[in-house]
Amino acid sequence: MSDPIKLGMVGGGNDASIGAVHRIAARLDGEFVLTAGALSSTPEKAMASGKALGLAADRTYPTFLDMAKREARLKDGIEAVAIVTPNHLHYPVAREFIKRGIHVICDKPLTSTLSDAKKMEVAVRKSDALFILSHNYTGYPMIRQAKEMIADDTLGNLRMIQVEYVQDWLTEPAEELGVKQAEWRTDPARSGVGGAIGDIGTHAYNLARFVTGYKLDSLAADLDSFVPGRRLDDNAHVMMRFEGGAKGMLWCSQVAPGNENNLRLRIFGENGGIEWSQEDPNYLWYSPYGAPKQLLTRAGSGAADSANAVSRTPGGHPEGYLEGFANIYTEAAKAIRAVGAAKPIPTDIKLQGIEEGIEGVRFLTACVQSSKRNSAWVSLWQV
Amino acid sequence: MSDPIKLGMVGGGNDASIGAVHRIAARLDGEFVLTAGALSSTPEKAMASGKALGLAADRTYPTFLDMAKREARLKDGIEAVAIVTPNHLHYPVAREFIKRGIHVICDKPLTSTLSDAKKMEVAVRKSDALFILSHNYTGYPMIRQAKEMIADDTLGNLRMIQVEYVQDWLTEPAEELGVKQAEWRTDPARSGVGGAIGDIGTHAYNLARFVTGYKLDSLAADLDSFVPGRRLDDNAHVMMRFEGGAKGMLWCSQVAPGNENNLRLRIFGENGGIEWSQEDPNYLWYSPYGAPKQLLTRAGSGAADSANAVSRTPGGHPEGYLEGFANIYTEAAKAIRAVGAAKPIPTDIKLQGIEEGIEGVRFLTACVQSSKRNSAWVSLWQV
Amino acid sequence: MSDPIKLGMVGGGNDASIGAVHRIAARLDGEFVLTAGALSSTPEKAMASGKALGLAADRTYPTFLDMAKREARLKDGIEAVAIVTPNHLHYPVAREFIKRGIHVICDKPLTSTLSDAKKMEVAVRKSDALFILSHNYTGYPMIRQAKEMIADDTLGNLRMIQVEYVQDWLTEPAEELGVKQAEWRTDPARSGVGGAIGDIGTHAYNLARFVTGYKLDSLAADLDSFVPGRRLDDNAHVMMRFEGGAKGMLWCSQVAPGNENNLRLRIFGENGGIEWSQEDPNYLWYSPYGAPKQLLTRAGSGAADSANAVSRTPGGHPEGYLEGFANIYTEAAKAIRAVGAAKPIPTDIKLQGIEEGIEGVRFLTACVQSSKRNSAWVSLWQV
Amino acid sequence: MSDPIKLGMVGGGNDASIGAVHRIAARLDGEFVLTAGALSSTPEKAMASGKALGLAADRTYPTFLDMAKREARLKDGIEAVAIVTPNHLHYPVAREFIKRGIHVICDKPLTSTLSDAKKMEVAVRKSDALFILSHNYTGYPMIRQAKEMIADDTLGNLRMIQVEYVQDWLTEPAEELGVKQAEWRTDPARSGVGGAIGDIGTHAYNLARFVTGYKLDSLAADLDSFVPGRRLDDNAHVMMRFEGGAKGMLWCSQVAPGNENNLRLRIFGENGGIEWSQEDPNYLWYSPYGAPKQLLTRAGSGAADSANAVSRTPGGHPEGYLEGFANIYTEAAKAIRAVGAAKPIPTDIKLQGIEEGIEGVRFLTACVQSSKRNSAWVSLWQV
Repeated sequence: MSDPIKLGMVGGGNDASIGAVHRIAARLDGEFVLTAGALSSTPEKAMASGKALGLAADRTYPTFLDMAKREARLKDGIEAVAIVTPNHLHYPVAREFIKRGIHVICDKPLTSTLSDAKKMEVAVRKSDALFILSHNYTGYPMIRQAKEMIADDTLGNLRMIQVEYVQDWLTEPAEELGVKQAEWRTDPARSGVGGAIGDIGTHAYNLARFVTGYKLDSLAADLDSFVPGRRLDDNAHVMMRFEGGAKGMLWCSQVAPGNENNLRLRIFGENGGIEWSQEDPNYLWYSPYGAPKQLLTRAGSGAADSANAVSRTPGGHPEGYLEGFANIYTEAAKAIRAVGAAKPIPTDIKLQGIEEGIEGVRFLTACVQSSKRNSAWVSLWQV
Repeated sequence: MSDPIKLGMVGGGNDASIGAVHRIAARLDGEFVLTAGALSSTPEKAMASGKALGLAADRTYPTFLDMAKREARLKDGIEAVAIVTPNHLHYPVAREFIKRGIHVICDKPLTSTLSDAKKMEVAVRKSDALFILSHNYTGYPMIRQAKEMIADDTLGNLRMIQVEYVQDWLTEPAEELGVKQAEWRTDPARSGVGGAIGDIGTHAYNLARFVTGYKLDSLAADLDSFVPGRRLDDNAHVMMRFEGGAKGMLWCSQVAPGNENNLRLRIFGENGGIEWSQEDPNYLWYSPYGAPKQLLTRAGSGAADSANAVSRTPGGHPEGYLEGFANIYTEAAKAIRAVGAAKPIPTDIKLQGIEEGIEGVRFLTACVQSSKRNSAWVSLWQV
Repeated sequence: MSDPIKLGMVGGGNDASIGAVHRIAARLDGEFVLTAGALSSTPEKAMASGKALGLAADRTYPTFLDMAKREARLKDGIEAVAIVTPNHLHYPVAREFIKRGIHVICDKPLTSTLSDAKKMEVAVRKSDALFILSHNYTGYPMIRQAKEMIADDTLGNLRMIQVEYVQDWLTEPAEELGVKQAEWRTDPARSGVGGAIGDIGTHAYNLARFVTGYKLDSLAADLDSFVPGRRLDDNAHVMMRFEGGAKGMLWCSQVAPGNENNLRLRIFGENGGIEWSQEDPNYLWYSPYGAPKQLLTRAGSGAADSANAVSRTPGGHPEGYLEGFANIYTEAAKAIRAVGAAKPIPTDIKLQGIEEGIEGVRFLTACVQSSKRNSAWVSLWQV
Repeated sequence: MSDPIKLGMVGGGNDASIGAVHRIAARLDGEFVLTAGALSSTPEKAMASGKALGLAADRTYPTFLDMAKREARLKDGIEAVAIVTPNHLHYPVAREFIKRGIHVICDKPLTSTLSDAKKMEVAVRKSDALFILSHNYTGYPMIRQAKEMIADDTLGNLRMIQVEYVQDWLTEPAEELGVKQAEWRTDPARSGVGGAIGDIGTHAYNLARFVTGYKLDSLAADLDSFVPGRRLDDNAHVMMRFEGGAKGMLWCSQVAPGNENNLRLRIFGENGGIEWSQEDPNYLWYSPYGAPKQLLTRAGSGAADSANAVSRTPGGHPEGYLEGFANIYTEAAKAIRAVGAAKPIPTDIKLQGIEEGIEGVRFLTACVQSSKRNSAWVSLWQV
C-alpha cells in the first residue's frame, strides 16, 4: 500500500454535513490523509473548524485562495483538494487549484450555471490536473453490476428507463425556519436555476446515464414550487427521449412525505428488467423475461466482477452510502497515482469528470427551460 | 339474505379469462346467480360454453340480441347482465339490454370510441336501468381506506399523484403468436385508439381519480409501440395537471419484464403520504410528515370503517383480486335492490358509471391526441 | 359443470366468523349450495341464523341431531355437512352424519381429545362416507408448489424444517373481556388440552408435514400461559426430530404484538431452501444453493403444474385466504363426486382426513406432555 | 479531535478477511492509526503482510511475542492491540499485551475454552489495561434504539425473545475444499467445542442479551453436524428460559441455503414488539399492541438519542456493517482516552468485556452440554 495522498478541503466546516461524509470517504480505504483546509467562507469559522478537526495550525487557512497559493508552493503540499461548498463556488474555487496543478475532487452539480461549467472546461483543458466529480451513487457495487449487465447486453436493447429521487425534508418551508442546508439550496444565487432538479434530479439523471450508457436526446419537464414562497422548484416531472428510441421518466421531489433518500432506478429491455433502490443498495432485482425474478446480492452468488471489485465485506454484511462514496475517492486515488507516473495527462482523461458535469448542468438547464415553455421538448444539446 | 339476483352474461365463453373472474365475483357473496348467457360471438361456441357452465339449454343463446329480447319477456328473466366482450361491442350490446330495462354491469373501458361513449350516455338517460362500470380495483378495502383518509383531509391538500400500471406480457409480439387476449387488445378495430393506455392506463387513471377525488385538468403524453409491428401503444408516459394545482405522473406499460400486474399508487399532500400496490393489496403505507411510517393492514388496527365494510376475513388472512371484484358486484346488487324499490331511477344515480366511463375514454383519447401532437398539453375536457 | 352438491352446516351462526368463511369457500367455485343448517348450539339462535342466511324454514334445524335424522331421510337431502363448531363437538356431531352416510367436512383440529379422535376413526371405518379435514392452508397454490418441488427432490434431502404461526390477538386477557372467540379457545372443556398449540400450532405442524412429507419422530416442547389467569398455553416453543435425521423448530404464539396471522414456513435441504409466508401467499422464495434467490409467483413464470391447477387468476392478481380455503372445498367436491360413482369407498381414501387429524391431535398432546415433563423428548407415536 | 491512537494488530494477514474489516473499522472515524503488526502465525507471511499494508519495517513483527515485548518498551509504542486470530489464540496473545499495559480489542468469542476464559479474567484483573470484546453487531444504531426502547419500558415486561443467525456458506464440506475460513472454524483444536454455535450462535445470544438486558437462566439445545464428516456443529436449535419468566428460541445455522448473514431479532412484551434484521440494519419495526406497525429508520423521525449518537449519515443514506463495527472501535477509543486520565482503572470497567465474553463461552458450552445430554435443560451458571 502506497503512502496516502495529501488532501485539502474547501468548505465542509462545522455546520456542514457533506464535509464529514467526504472526509470519511477519503479515509475509509486509507488512500487519503486530510492535510489542509479552508473549511468555511467565514475566516473565523474556517480556522475554528480546522482546529476542531485536528489540522495543523499552519495548514488551516482563512480562505481557499490562501490555501491554493501556499499549498502549491510547499514541498509536501496537498496533491488534491475536495471542494464541498455550495454550487456557485465550485468554479471560482476549482480554478485556483487546477491552475496550480492540484487535482480537484468536486461535489456535484458541476456549477450553478452553464457558463461557469464551460469556463471550468477551459480551465481543466489548460491545466495539468485531474478533475473528478463526486457522483457518489455511481460507487455502489450493485450499480456497477447493473452497468456491467447492460453493457453485456443481458437486457437486450433498452426500452424504458425510469428513475426517481424522492425526499421529504423540504415539505415545510425549512428555509424560513433556520435550516442552513435548506437556505442555500433554495437560493437561486447559491444553487443556480434549479432547486430539487439541480440538487437531486442531476443525481438521478447521472445514475441512469452511468448505468445505461444511453445518451439523452431531449426532455419535457414540468417543475413546481409547492411550498408557498419557495424560489426554486421542489418537485419535477420529466419525460425523456433517448437517442435510438428508448424512453424514460424522471421524478424528483423534496416534498414527498415518507421518502428520505429514495433514489430508485428501473430499467427495461427486450429481454429483461432490473430494479435498484439506494436505500437498500445491496440488492439488485433482475427479471429475465419469461423466468422468475432473481434477487442479486452484493458479494453474493451471481455478483459481477465489477461489483466485487468495489466490495469490502462478505455478502449479507451490508455496505452503505459511505462505502459507495469511498469507492469514488479510492478510484480517484488510483487515477491520481496513475497520472503521477505519466504527465501530461491525456485530454480525454482530464475531461471525463467535466463532460459528465457539463451534461448534468445541461440536463437541469433544459428542464428549467422546458418547464418555462409549457413542457415543450428541449434538446439537451441545444441549451 | 334476499334471493340472489338473476344474472345474464354476454361474452366470457370458454376462451376468455375475464368471464370466469366475473362469474366468481358475482357468486362470491351469494348475491347473484348466473341464469342466462350469450357467451361468445360465434353461436356454436356460445352454445357450447353455456353447456359447459351448466346453464339451462333454454337460457343459453346464440347471440346477445336473442338473449335480450327473450329474457326481457320472461317472467323470471334476468334482472341484470354482465358484459365482458371486447371493447367495441360494449355499446351495441349494452344498448339492447338497457332499453329493455335490464341493468348492465359492463367491463371497462366504457367503449372503444368517445362517440360510442356519448351514445351510451343517451341510452342510459332514456332507460330505466342502472349502468355499472366494473372498475374492479376500486373494490379493494385498502383503496377505500385511502379514499377515506384523503376525504378526511389526513394528508392535507394534495400535491403529487403518482400512479403506474405495469405489466410484461406483451414484451414479445404475443399477438402474432396466437395469444387471443393479445390479438384483440392490439387491434384498433376491437380495442379502439388506445392499447396499453386504454387497457390498463384507464384503470390507473380511474384509481387515482377514485381515491383522490381530484379532477384532472390536462395532460401531456408520450406513447410508444416498442414491439415492431404493433399497431397500438404498449407503453405510455403521461404528465398530469389537476385542477387546483396538484401534479402527477402516470406510467403504464405492457412491455416491462418482471411486472405482472403492478398497479401502484403514491399520493402526497402537505401533511403526509400514502402508498399502495395492487399486488400486495392488504397493506397501505401511511407516512405522516415528521413521524415514522405506518403499515396499515386490512382489518387490522387503524383500518377505516369504509375498508372494514368491504372486508370478509380477519387481518392477516389476505383477501385478493377476486374479493375486490366481488365488492363491485355486491355493491351493484345493493344498488339494484335499492332501485327496485324506487323507480324511476334518479338521473344522477343512473349516470354514475357512465360519467366515470366517459371520463376514462376522454383520458385515453387525450393521451393519444397529446402524443400525436408531440406531447402538447391537452385538456381532458376539450377532446 | 355438474349440479352443485347440497351442503348442510353445523355451527357457524351469527356470532361465529369461521362459518362465513366456510360458506364463501363452499360457494366460490360453484361446487356446493348451502341447503340446510343447525347453526348454533342454542336452538333459538340456530333458527334465527338460518333465517338470516336465507335457508328454507324446513331446512333450518334447532339441533344437529334433528338435522342429521331428517336430512338423511329426505330424497333431496344434503350430501355433505360442514362442521364448524368448537373442537369438543367435532366428534359427537360428525358421528351422527357419518353413520347416516353423509360426507363430513370438519374444521381442525380433529377433536379435543385423542380418545375422541380414535373413536372418530372407528366411526369412519364403519361408515360409507368421506371424512375431510379442512386444513385450509394446504390449499394455497404456492404451498402446492413447495410440496411438488420437495417431492421432485429440488432441495435434496431436507435438513431443517422451521415453521411458525404467530398471532397477537390474545396479548391481553380477551377471554375476560367478552370476546367469544377467545372464550372457548382458552377453555379446556371446549378446546381440549392445547391452547395456541391446538388452535394454530396444529396448523403449522400440518403444513410442514403436508409440504415435506417428512414424518415426525419426537419433539421437546416448552409451553407457557403468559397472560395471568389463562388456563391454556398462549405460546409454545417446540424442537422437532424427524425420521431420517431432519430437525426442526416450531413456534406458535397468540401473544406476539405485531403479528396477525403470521404462518411461515422455511425449509432447507442439501441443495436449496424455500420460504413462504401465509400473509403474502402468492410468493415463494426459492434459493438454489450457490445461485441467486428466485421469487416464484403464483401463476407466474416457474409456477408448477400443481400450483396452476388450483389457481384462478393470472399472476399479479393476488389470490388469498378464501381462495385457498375454496380449493379444499372444491377438492372435497371432486372426491365426493368420485365416490358417488364407486362405493364402497376404499378404506385408505376414507381415512385420509382421519389419519391427518389424529396425527394433529397426537402432535398437540405430545407437546403438552413434553412441556409437563420439563421438555423431555416425547415420541409422537407413543402418546 | 485528538491524535489517533496507535494500534497494533495480531492476525489479519493477507489471507484473512476479518483483519481488513477491523482495520477499516479502526480507521473510519479517524480514531486509530495502524502502527504495528504481527499479522500471521507464519513469520514469513507476517512480514509480507505488514509490507503489503504499508507498515514500517521495524514495526512489522514475525511473532506476537516479539511485538508485545518491543512495543511495550518503545516511547511511541502502540497503545492498543487488535486480536483477530482464530479463537484458541485469543488468550495466549491477549495475556502478553495485557500484562504489559497495552489495551486489547479482541474478536469474539472470548476464548475457545471456558478455562481459558477464566484465565483471561485473572489476567485482566491483575493488569492496568482495558479488555474490549468486539461484539460488532451491538454497534448498529437501530440496535441501540431497540435497547433504549426496552430499557424505557416501551414494550412492557418481555415475554418472548426470538433470535437467529443463519448462513449457508458451509452447506457443502467447504473445509475439505480448501476454504481456509472453513478449515479452522470446523476444527475443534482451533475453534473449541462449538462450531456454528460458537461462531455465530454466540453473536446471536450476545445481541439478545445486549438489547434486552435479560439474564438467561437455562437452555435446552439440539446440535447437529449435517455435513458428513464435519467435526463440529453446523446447526443448532436452542430453547431458552430467562430469569423472571421470559422465554426464547435461538436458531443458528451455517447450512441454510439462501441465507448470507441473516441475524434477526424479534422481541415481544406485554405492550408491543420489535423486529430487526442485520441485513437491513437501518430499519426497526415497532409494533405497539393495538396500533399500526411503525417502520423506524436510522436517523429518521422517531430515532432515539442513543441511535443518533452512533449515526453518521442522514436518514435514507444507509449505514452498514463497517459503520457498526467502527462504532465499537470509536467507543473503545473513548474508553481508552478516559482511562488514560484516570488510572488505576476501576475493576468493573476493566471486566466489562471479560464478563460478556465469559457469558458467551458459558452459553456455547451449555449448548454443547445440553445437546450431549439429549437436550436436557442446563443452567448457564453451572457449566
